[in-house]
Amino acid sequence: MTEGSPTGRRVSRRGLLTGGAVAAGGALAGGAAIAVARPDDPRVRPAEPVPVAQVGSAVESFHGVRQSGVTTEPQAHAAFVAFTLKPGVDRAALGRMLRLLSDDAARLTRGRPALADTEPELGLLPARLTVTFGFGPGLYAAAGRADRRPPSVADLPAFRIDRLQPRWSGGDLLLQICADDPLTVAHAQRVLVKDSRPFATVRWVQQGFRRAAGAEPGRTQRNLFGQLDGTANPRPGTPADTAVWVTDGPNWLRDSTTLVVRRISMNLETWDLLGRTDREIAVGRRLDTGAPLTGTAEHDEPDFAALGPDGLTVIPDFSHLTRARVTDDRLKILRRPYNYDGVPTAEGHADSGLVFAAYQADIARQFLPIQRRLAERDLLNEWTTPIGSAVFAVPPGCPEGGWVGQQVLG
Amino acid sequence: MTEGSPTGRRVSRRGLLTGGAVAAGGALAGGAAIAVARPDDPRVRPAEPVPVAQVGSAVESFHGVRQSGVTTEPQAHAAFVAFTLKPGVDRAALGRMLRLLSDDAARLTRGRPALADTEPELGLLPARLTVTFGFGPGLYAAAGRADRRPPSVADLPAFRIDRLQPRWSGGDLLLQICADDPLTVAHAQRVLVKDSRPFATVRWVQQGFRRAAGAEPGRTQRNLFGQLDGTANPRPGTPADTAVWVTDGPNWLRDSTTLVVRRISMNLETWDLLGRTDREIAVGRRLDTGAPLTGTAEHDEPDFAALGPDGLTVIPDFSHLTRARVTDDRLKILRRPYNYDGVPTAEGHADSGLVFAAYQADIARQFLPIQRRLAERDLLNEWTTPIGSAVFAVPPGCPEGGWVGQQVLG
Ligand code: HEM
Ligand code: HEM
Repeated sequence: MTEGSPTGRRVSRRGLLTGGAVAAGGALAGGAAIAVARPDDPRVRPAEPVPVAQVGSAVESFHGVRQSGVTTEPQAHAAFVAFTLKPGVDRAALGRMLRLLSDDAARLTRGRPALADTEPELGLLPARLTVTFGFGPGLYAAAGRADRRPPSVADLPAFRIDRLQPRWSGGDLLLQICADDPLTVAHAQRVLVKDSRPFATVRWVQQGFRRAAGAEPGRTQRNLFGQLDGTANPRPGTPADTAVWVTDGPNWLRDSTTLVVRRISMNLETWDLLGRTDREIAVGRRLDTGAPLTGTAEHDEPDFAALGPDGLTVIPDFSHLTRARVTDDRLKILRRPYNYDGVPTAEGHADSGLVFAAYQADIARQFLPIQRRLAERDLLNEWTTPIGSAVFAVPPGCPEGGWVGQQVLG
Repeated sequence: MTEGSPTGRRVSRRGLLTGGAVAAGGALAGGAAIAVARPDDPRVRPAEPVPVAQVGSAVESFHGVRQSGVTTEPQAHAAFVAFTLKPGVDRAALGRMLRLLSDDAARLTRGRPALADTEPELGLLPARLTVTFGFGPGLYAAAGRADRRPPSVADLPAFRIDRLQPRWSGGDLLLQICADDPLTVAHAQRVLVKDSRPFATVRWVQQGFRRAAGAEPGRTQRNLFGQLDGTANPRPGTPADTAVWVTDGPNWLRDSTTLVVRRISMNLETWDLLGRTDREIAVGRRLDTGAPLTGTAEHDEPDFAALGPDGLTVIPDFSHLTRARVTDDRLKILRRPYNYDGVPTAEGHADSGLVFAAYQADIARQFLPIQRRLAERDLLNEWTTPIGSAVFAVPPGCPEGGWVGQQVLG
């Protein structure tokens, strides 16, 4: 985690990459024979040759006022692991479980093996590992702490676009495990799942990926539709803080956030039959630059009033951009999605989509109005289908020696 | 591919990382605030702070006398995609298919979109993409070219340790897709599967991973048992060339190799119950350093005759190391395995293992004797189970404008 860390040290890979590293980039390019792509395609905008340092040993601090893995610059790999608490797991047992898992996370995120780690050598490369704890409604009930459940953390209403499968839905406890190295994620998942076994069963696991660390530093990632995905996200700083984090209230609520995880399948078969123009119209942005249809650069402000020669708005009223748009900074959500790509069918049809993860201070005020507008009308619905859904409170972080959830259960 | 490339240009990431890049590493470390792990565990040997350049834009040449993806320094991510040819696909149809897939591979490996690429923006980061073509026995039959099938490319005999599942076994055509970026692998897989649809169905896909590019440069990778895996591999150079590649014979055989893909599940549940000493005895090497039990450093020569105080050999006669050992360079195999980590069961039992991929000039002379010895007696068998098996010829590479398989089908 970056903001709110008790050490006050801010570790930003983005800053690292665009700041002091540039000189090193020059040195590298000069000192070694690097083969680079020389794409002759007009769509190509080659990345600056910027080296990435310390992929394996870079650390995101686990301890802090707020949990890491939320406003942390997204790592390349994620496993979302949801658990069902075993019958009889009460507040005391939950406390033991969360102490244990917090201790595991504190060690592993530092590149130290967990206590009783049976594969200690796999615990030595943190690779910016974060472990973010989410509490589902059932956890509050089991703990006899229904009064401390943020009211918006409750099953979402059913939307007509939903085709939810129980195997991807719900959960009493979520661990969002992210790192720039896939072996680090696998090992952390193994340790955390093992230590949770006395208390909980695994309900579902969703693994996802984004671009590798250093593959395209400083760029907005693309999803499997080829779209730049994340452009309009609130950037870390004041607006993100007010939108993502609860900034006042009792100590179990302040510095918390909430997480909605939706598994959304993306139908590449039908999407790929569309022309580029139709695809751009569906979203309201261009596929190459990510610019709004009324602009030329990714971060140009869209002009929703601009009319085309046909008298219609250039950005269609039912485009994803128009429907999802939020102008009030305090109502924005922080999207932190990962791509998934399962095994295609025998016929070669892809099993692709997003593990869509959205963080916001309040699901009811921020996420739901957007999701309602999208469910009601969004051109993109034609090619996307929510097949899983789960909601979690993300309680405040903990100081060194503490454990996540102590303010909620204590 | 590196060796045998027609351009004669050798692009070695290992060289890049250990050579000219060191100066840049210094510059970087000085110029930016990098948080690194300071592990206090005695097992820790922190990696040198070496930056990785060009994760996204680095290129492995597709064209060459030999196919790439074999002696290429293993990339972080792999998808092994096996196809079954559709009935009626004959030599002419196969020629069309292989022309198309070779053209896709030639473009994508360079960071150019495939022809008619529906997500061209996803084709711009090669990330050392390689696409390696393997021909199963059925392909030679379909092509009416049984005479050009290397005789050792035939279903392996059954071993008593096998618990093979059809869903992970066999295949007429294999595409081994590897890159340092997972999105690049997903996109290449999508393009290649789509273009194969008129000719073939997808039989199985196995996705795997190793350490991220730059996470631990120059180190032997670890598998999910925590073992250093790859220590005794032949290194690129003369011995590898004679062991991996067929160096004479007709043009459809020369510069070819063969590939055995075995899906081997690794039982972490029972493995984790063992003490470290027992685990080290099972393999004959230490878990921390990878040194043989008779040595102190990873690459020390094992002493199979050395006796312990109990009068038994220090490296047990039934250890994996002893049983797998090959001293004749010409009989070695090149292991290029990837880890897989599926979704754990509700009880939290891992679904982990290796997509074990071995390259050798001749399966019968090189792979089979080792596999026979291991199947007969290998302490490691207690915790590992082969659940899939497939064999492929890896025909020679092709020059710019050519296609893989032209010497076989032509
Ligand atoms: C597979 C499903 C989805 C895909 C492929 C998708 C894709 C996109 C793309 C390409 C953009 C424009 C670039 C950007 O700002 O990131 C975007 C914007 C956005 N999307 Fe989605 N999206 C999906 C689902 C959702 C869902 C479920 C929500 C929330 C309920 C959502 C909320 C937003 C928001 C708030 C924006 C920013 C709008 C603005 O400019 O203010 N999206 N999405
Ligand atoms: C999940 C299954 C397996 C695991 C976990 C495993 C693990 C290992 C380990 C840790 C080593 C020592 C370090 C090294 O040189 O890489 C090793 C060596 C080796 N393994 Fe395996 N292995 C497996 C399956 C196989 C199979 C199926 C074969 C071939 C049929 C094989 C052939 C070899 C060879 C040839 C060596 C090098 C021996 C030498 O020092 O000359 N392994 N393996």
